[in-house]
Amino acid sequence: MKKLFAQRVLNNSNSYINDIFKNSANPQNISFAGGFPDQDLFPSDQLEEAYRTAIANSKPDIFQYQSVQGSPSLRQKIANRMIKNSGMMVSSENILLTQGGQQAIDLTAKLLLNKGDSIAVEAPTYMGALTAFDMYEPVYHEIPIDKDGMQIDILEQTLKKHPKIKLIYTIPDFQNPTGTLLTSERRKKMVELANKYDVMILEDSPYRELKFEGDSVPPVKYYDTEDRVIFISSFSKILSPALRTGWMIAGKGVMERLLDLKSATDLQSPAITLAAVDQYLSNNDIDQHIKEMTDVYRQKRNVMLSAIKRYFPKEITYTIPHGGFFVWVTLPQEINSTQLLIEKVLPDAHVAYVPSDSQYVSKKITNAFRLNYTGLNPTIIEEGIKKLGEVLRKEIQLVQLKIG
Amino acid sequence: MKKLFAQRVLNNSNSYINDIFKNSANPQNISFAGGFPDQDLFPSDQLEEAYRTAIANSKPDIFQYQSVQGSPSLRQKIANRMIKNSGMMVSSENILLTQGGQQAIDLTAKLLLNKGDSIAVEAPTYMGALTAFDMYEPVYHEIPIDKDGMQIDILEQTLKKHPKIKLIYTIPDFQNPTGTLLTSERRKKMVELANKYDVMILEDSPYRELKFEGDSVPPVKYYDTEDRVIFISSFSKILSPALRTGWMIAGKGVMERLLDLKSATDLQSPAITLAAVDQYLSNNDIDQHIKEMTDVYRQKRNVMLSAIKRYFPKEITYTIPHGGFFVWVTLPQEINSTQLLIEKVLPDAHVAYVPSDSQYVSKKITNAFRLNYTGLNPTIIEEGIKKLGEVLRKEIQLVQLKIG
Repeated sequence: MKKLFAQRVLNNSNSYINDIFKNSANPQNISFAGGFPDQDLFPSDQLEEAYRTAIANSKPDIFQYQSVQGSPSLRQKIANRMIKNSGMMVSSENILLTQGGQQAIDLTAKLLLNKGDSIAVEAPTYMGALTAFDMYEPVYHEIPIDKDGMQIDILEQTLKKHPKIKLIYTIPDFQNPTGTLLTSERRKKMVELANKYDVMILEDSPYRELKFEGDSVPPVKYYDTEDRVIFISSFSKILSPALRTGWMIAGKGVMERLLDLKSATDLQSPAITLAAVDQYLSNNDIDQHIKEMTDVYRQKRNVMLSAIKRYFPKEITYTIPHGGFFVWVTLPQEINSTQLLIEKVLPDAHVAYVPSDSQYVSKKITNAFRLNYTGLNPTIIEEGIKKLGEVLRKEIQLVQLKIG
Repeated sequence: MKKLFAQRVLNNSNSYINDIFKNSANPQNISFAGGFPDQDLFPSDQLEEAYRTAIANSKPDIFQYQSVQGSPSLRQKIANRMIKNSGMMVSSENILLTQGGQQAIDLTAKLLLNKGDSIAVEAPTYMGALTAFDMYEPVYHEIPIDKDGMQIDILEQTLKKHPKIKLIYTIPDFQNPTGTLLTSERRKKMVELANKYDVMILEDSPYRELKFEGDSVPPVKYYDTEDRVIFISSFSKILSPALRTGWMIAGKGVMERLLDLKSATDLQSPAITLAAVDQYLSNNDIDQHIKEMTDVYRQKRNVMLSAIKRYFPKEITYTIPHGGFFVWVTLPQEINSTQLLIEKVLPDAHVAYVPSDSQYVSKKITNAFRLNYTGLNPTIIEEGIKKLGEVLRKEIQLVQLKIG
């Protein structure tokens, strides 16, 4: 039967995300692997009430087919928040409600990518985006990240050298997996480059509102002058991932096509869920909720960074995220983080992380890994980092012995 | 910007489904166009209670990320019903929960179709499936329908002549749009042909349980001996379309790949919705609900057929559906149903239907249309058919005058 599968499926050698979900579900392990929000922070009672009210207010209509684009009232509320929080002009007509940010990435790929088309991605980047893009069989060009996000000078060289690039994929806010924030200068420059080299930008920004400190930076789309930026965000990280409710913002010409694609893909998102999110936003102060959640996540970030400082050997470097979900850890070149995970970290320390190779298209960086701090409580974070530190210390001693 | 769009998007010249939803929303028109269930039949109070209980019982976990495949408990209930109602052996491990049947079609296309791969479809067929398949740029081969469903002898000739065909797409139960039921002999033969010519079958069966009369016929998958049939159904027509909850049944090798595709597409379906459907099935007798719904739909089918008999000119032929949502009407060859809709039926009679050209890949049959009877009440059905009959009578007289 396998010969009947499409090439895109046969290409797909790894399904890291599924494995991560499985690893995280094993209660034996302390898993820093998943990108899970802290479920104690979900406004469960308010969401429960929102579902109750939404259904009571609009049955039986709420159970019928609705529009492809999704609840106009919810789209208006999202537009209002985007205007208030980012200074962008956003109309509800330019918003499409999607099944989380993941579907928004898939729809963008479906919109733009012929087999063999080129795309520029950050290195490292969100591995779930790569699995979505992979299905359209693109050619990737990696743009390395430094402490200020995607390196724009390298982006420019790459765009100049590869005129077939159609799309730049960026996670500018507290990047997955490195936690870095793209500077406003680089955002502006990125749009200028998109205009100059005639490419689109996919701005994937689920962590934007989870800022621990520092100045606000406008979205890349804020600088957009030619409707080249498709902006994505979702309620998964700020409210609940089980809502599977994301949104994408695009110009009129792009939006018209996206509606057709959404219809072809799954007709529409579930009206009941959209009504419940709308109801939640009507009856609650989501900004206050996000502030409280951010306070907890900042504290967890602090606990993880202190623990890393205390328990990790000094040969190891790591990023300092000012928001979002992740710390990126770099080991000495000689250590392969996938091998280490399988042979020592999981069996000896019962700790899980996401090794770097799955987060690079090229898979060539093998000595780093991603840690999540939002999903675990501070005591467990401390314990897990301590255990992980012990394995890392031994491994580095071993490597130094070999080298020495 | 348009030149940055993928070829699959530029190919897509029509977005009929969106237009139908728009037409149906215009309260001025009596729309037989949409495939809407009767919303007075939704078990709204029971679904409301199901959401309430599901959330109350499992918060806050229910708001967290869950598995790609979807609620094991709901999958088990679906498996049990399939075993009971169809005599197939189905394990919950072989079920994937999807965003309605539409996503199941999209995932199947994503699994199998390289650009230029060939696929056999019924003529006419469900236009939403064509929009999903179109995105993977296949070559279509049309297999005509007669009163017993897909014509299997023509299927065999086609498979013999075109060895590049990978997939047969069929709606065997009360087909959309013709309402026909594929005989069990043809089902068996279809599987034999799939084995012989090494192709997969996509069995799309959302109307299966809405049977008005006649013997039960097993699913095509019942005859499957080599895991070649992917079976799709959904709760959209038997419970509520706003749940966007469908399922697909596939063998192990196919299922493994489908899980990766689902993850790449939207990670997972909304856990809250799946828990609510599960709760509904625990606390209610869905078979009894379907029986009551089927009684109403049978009555509406009867009203539509009587009205057609009374008000349509004798030159017009139509199918007699024994279940499902649709009647298929064929006009004299000379009449173009799209032109008639736009120029006379909509403006004069304020009635809408789905013209045949959008339901044929080849668009070559232009003298037929699809009518839905489930979404409207009997008085409106009678009124709409009467108005439509008047336009048809005039048009046929006009054609006869021209010919004469």
